[in-house]
Amino acid sequence: MWQAKTIIIGVMGGGNTSNEDKISAYGLGSLIAAQGWILLNGGRNCGIMEASAKGAMDNGGITVGILPDSDYEQVSEYISIPILTGMGNARNCINILSSHYIVACQGGAGTLSEIALALKNKKPLILLNFDTRDLFEEYADKDLLFFADTPEHAIEKIHDLIKMKQ
Amino acid sequence: MWQAKTIIIGVMGGGNTSNEDKISAYGLGSLIAAQGWILLNGGRNCGIMEASAKGAMDNGGITVGILPDSDYEQVSEYISIPILTGMGNARNCINILSSHYIVACQGGAGTLSEIALALKNKKPLILLNFDTRDLFEEYADKDLLFFADTPEHAIEKIHDLIKMKQ
Amino acid sequence: MWQAKTIIIGVMGGGNTSNEDKISAYGLGSLIAAQGWILLNGGRNCGIMEASAKGAMDNGGITVGILPDSDYEQVSEYISIPILTGMGNARNCINILSSHYIVACQGGAGTLSEIALALKNKKPLILLNFDTRDLFEEYADKDLLFFADTPEHAIEKIHDLIKMKQ
Amino acid sequence: MWQAKTIIIGVMGGGNTSNEDKISAYGLGSLIAAQGWILLNGGRNCGIMEASAKGAMDNGGITVGILPDSDYEQVSEYISIPILTGMGNARNCINILSSHYIVACQGGAGTLSEIALALKNKKPLILLNFDTRDLFEEYADKDLLFFADTPEHAIEKIHDLIKMKQ
Repeated sequence: MWQAKTIIIGVMGGGNTSNEDKISAYGLGSLIAAQGWILLNGGRNCGIMEASAKGAMDNGGITVGILPDSDYEQVSEYISIPILTGMGNARNCINILSSHYIVACQGGAGTLSEIALALKNKKPLILLNFDTRDLFEEYADKDLLFFADTPEHAIEKIHDLIKMKQ
Repeated sequence: MWQAKTIIIGVMGGGNTSNEDKISAYGLGSLIAAQGWILLNGGRNCGIMEASAKGAMDNGGITVGILPDSDYEQVSEYISIPILTGMGNARNCINILSSHYIVACQGGAGTLSEIALALKNKKPLILLNFDTRDLFEEYADKDLLFFADTPEHAIEKIHDLIKMKQ
Repeated sequence: MWQAKTIIIGVMGGGNTSNEDKISAYGLGSLIAAQGWILLNGGRNCGIMEASAKGAMDNGGITVGILPDSDYEQVSEYISIPILTGMGNARNCINILSSHYIVACQGGAGTLSEIALALKNKKPLILLNFDTRDLFEEYADKDLLFFADTPEHAIEKIHDLIKMKQ
Repeated sequence: MWQAKTIIIGVMGGGNTSNEDKISAYGLGSLIAAQGWILLNGGRNCGIMEASAKGAMDNGGITVGILPDSDYEQVSEYISIPILTGMGNARNCINILSSHYIVACQGGAGTLSEIALALKNKKPLILLNFDTRDLFEEYADKDLLFFADTPEHAIEKIHDLIKMKQ
C-alpha cells in the first residue's frame, strides 16, 4: 500500500472572513510548511484559502488547490499545484478524501459541509476557533473531532495524532 | 428556459434512524406523491431514504434515487428511477441541485452536509424535526431555512413557497 | 437486489448534428417510449438530446436528462425529469452508469467519450449509424458493441439483449 | 489570473500495457521531470501510470496522481501527491482539466475517453504511438491534436506549443 511521502493537511474555511481569521490562517499555513507538510485547500483567491496558501508558500511549502472551477480565473497566486475539477461544491469531497488531517477555520455553509463530510468519512478534524455548537459532539467522543485555539495548538494536535498512529 | 412539468422535492435524512423518524418520512413521502410531486432522495435501501420512497410509491408517486454507488446492490425497491453516480458523497451536491425544495429529516453528518450545501446553493430547505441548533440561523433570516413539526406542516410550507414564487 | 421496474435506455449523441440524424433520433425516442422504456440522455436543448427527448415525450414516455449544468437555462423542454449535476463532462459517467442499454447516435468528441466509458464499464452499446472505424472492435468480439442502421433495428437489438439476460 | 509556476503535463495511458509501452512511458516521465515540469496521471500502481510516475520520480520530479478511489490501496509508490476523488472514471475529467498539455500513450477505452474529453475541452494533446485511426482527425486540423513517435519527440512538441503561446 502507498506510504505517504509527505503528510497532506487540508485547511478548510470561508471565502469571506474577518482579518483576524485570515491572520490565523496565514499562521497555520506557515506552520504547516515549517513541518514539511503539504497544504491542501479549495484553491481560490480569497478568504482562508488565499491566506493559508500564502502562509505556506511564503515559508517554502507546497500548496495544492482543489478548485470548483474549470479554468484558472479564480486560482490564488499562492497555489503551487491547482487541480481544476469543474465540479463546483462536489469538489469538497475530494478535499476531504485527499487530506490526512483537516483543520477547519472560520467559515459558512461551505465549510460546514466539509466538516460534516470529513467526520462522515472518519477523517480526523480540528476546529480552529470555529464554534459548531454541540452539533458534531458524538465525533469528539469517537476521537475524530478536536478543538484548537491557536494555529500552534492545531499543529501540536496533529503531531499527537501522527504519533498515535505509529 | 425550462419550465418544471413537475415539482421535485428532495428528501434528505439518515440511513440509520429511529422508527418514529421513518414513520414521519413515510408520511412525508405519501403527501409528496399526493400533491403530484416527484420525490428525490439518496436512493438507498435504508433509513429515511427507503421510508420516504415507500411512502411515495405506495401512493402512486414517482421516486428518483441519486445513488452514491455504481451498481444496483443497495438501491431501495421503492425507487422508480435510480441514477447511479459512482461518486460517493459527491452525489450529495446533485441531490441538492436537482431539487426545487428540500425537506431535511433526522440524520447525521451526511444529512448535515446536504443541509449546508442546500443553503450555500440558495435552495429553500425545511427542517422536519431536525434540530441544528442555531448553526444555520442566518439562513432563516434570508427566507431560505424553515422549520416544521409534522409532514403536513412541511407540505403546507412548500405550498406557501410555491405561491410566493408565482 | 433492486429489480428494474422500467428499463432505462441511454441515448447519446452530439449537440450539433445534421437534420437527418435528428430525425433518426426522434424516431429512436418514439420507439423507446412505445416499448414502455425510460429514455435517459444529456438533457440539453439541442441536437440528438432534444430530438430524442421530443420523440419520447410526444409518445407519452418519461425522459430523464443528466445535465452538465447547475441551473435550468439549457434544459430541453422535452425532459420530464432534469437532474442537475453541476459537473460538466463528469456527468457523462453518470449517463453511462445509469443506463441499462445505450444507443450512440452521431456525435463528436463528447459522444466518443461516452462510447469509451460505456464499453469500459461493460454496458451493452449500439452504434446507430455512427462509424467509429475499428477502434472499439475488441468490444464487438466481447458481445458489448453492436451496430444498427435504423432506430427499429436498434430497438430489435435491445429486445434481443433483454431476452439473452432472462 | 493565476500564472503557472510550473507546467503540468498530463500523461494518459492504459493500466495494462506492453513492456515496450512502459519503457516509453518511463522515458517520457524522465524527460518531463528533466524539464522541471510536473507530471499528472491517474495515479494507480500499474501500466502507463506507474511507469511514467517512476520515470519522473527517479529524475527528481513531482508526480500528482488523480485516483478514482477513495483510499490508498492502489496508489503507485511513485506518486508524490495522491488526490483521492472517490469518483471512478469521473476523475478522467479532472485529469484533463488540470493538465496544460496532455500526452496519450497506448491504452484502451479509458484512455480513449480521456483523449475525447481533452479535445472536447480544447486541451492540446499529443498521441505517442497511439493510433486512433482518423477518428479525431478534425482536431489535428484545429491544431489541438499532434503525433509523436518517441518521448523526445513529444517533449519537443510541447516546447513548440509553449513557445507559440508566448
